[in-house]
Amino acid sequence: MALPQPTEIARPIARVTFVAGGTGEWRVREMRAIRGEPLADAQALSRIEGGSFVSAEAAAWVLRGVRSHERYLERAEKEQLVAIQEDLGRPTSRLAVLIPIRKADAWWNLPQDERRAVFEARSHHIEIGSKYLPAIARRLYHCRELGEPFDFLTWFELSDADEAAFDELLARLRETEEWRYVEREVEIRLGRG
Amino acid sequence: MALPQPTEIARPIARVTFVAGGTGEWRVREMRAIRGEPLADAQALSRIEGGSFVSAEAAAWVLRGVRSHERYLERAEKEQLVAIQEDLGRPTSRLAVLIPIRKADAWWNLPQDERRAVFEARSHHIEIGSKYLPAIARRLYHCRELGEPFDFLTWFELSDADEAAFDELLARLRETEEWRYVEREVEIRLGRG
Repeated sequence: MALPQPTEIARPIARVTFVAGGTGEWRVREMRAIRGEPLADAQALSRIEGGSFVSAEAAAWVLRGVRSHERYLERAEKEQLVAIQEDLGRPTSRLAVLIPIRKADAWWNLPQDERRAVFEARSHHIEIGSKYLPAIARRLYHCRELGEPFDFLTWFELSDADEAAFDELLARLRETEEWRYVEREVEIRLGRG
Repeated sequence: MALPQPTEIARPIARVTFVAGGTGEWRVREMRAIRGEPLADAQALSRIEGGSFVSAEAAAWVLRGVRSHERYLERAEKEQLVAIQEDLGRPTSRLAVLIPIRKADAWWNLPQDERRAVFEARSHHIEIGSKYLPAIARRLYHCRELGEPFDFLTWFELSDADEAAFDELLARLRETEEWRYVEREVEIRLGRG
């Protein structure tokens, strides 16, 4: 689909394109559908950040997203996370995991106060996640408003030694009330080169 | 910019393209920059909703957005609005107004609780807006994550008799703390054909 050329200068925005195929930056170790339809098999995945989406014609699949502002974090939570989380690209992060998620319309139709209540007061999403910092580095991309097949693409980086903790983190989140609204989730585990 | 063809089926999403030019559905009565850069002059504007953005090569400008979920509304506020607001397309709505707005990074960097506090507790955005229902019909489109020049495109429809009330609504909102975060705003007043 070719978009019309806007005659106005666009605001710079941080975009990401995940390209899955035969070769790429990360080797696919395991890919499984947690809920809903799987993604097509691929041997490798690249995460390409930049101001534009990247074209990839021969890919098994392409997923796109943008970095954006926080939707639920309150001041104290944000300050705590910023103080302890680490950035992507650590040399010890030999493992990465991409988890695309789509939530049901029932989630999106909730008013903001109820989404926040499910997210934190009842599911403890931030509290659970913060227990695994700084070991697990994370970046969230939004894609619902792009009309993509998923709502979020979350990228995790960790060392081999932290994979058991990561498994525990996923298990705890998937037991929450929030996760009842997840209608599609795929888990893609990756290794360096 | 040609986007890569996603090999996954995208979720249906309600998109809008506003096309300004020499001819169109609505005649431009007045266009003025409230804050920041103006938009290029145009004689007419069309609002085209659908599953895809519309191409418009000879347009003066094109702005795009998507309908999306509520960002700040709580349950009681949402129920009250839904109960009294009216839809677009009323035959008595001979006037329309498009107001594209962009907020500063300082807004987007605020945590959710502080954005909500500025939005409603201190600026009474919902409370002020609801006083002008159902006379003024309104539809909000989001475009920040599309990398568009604005963050929001708000479309209003009203009768000639309600234009003075509409002026008052805009004046009240523009005096709020929330509006200190607006770094670009253009007001485009339109009449039928």
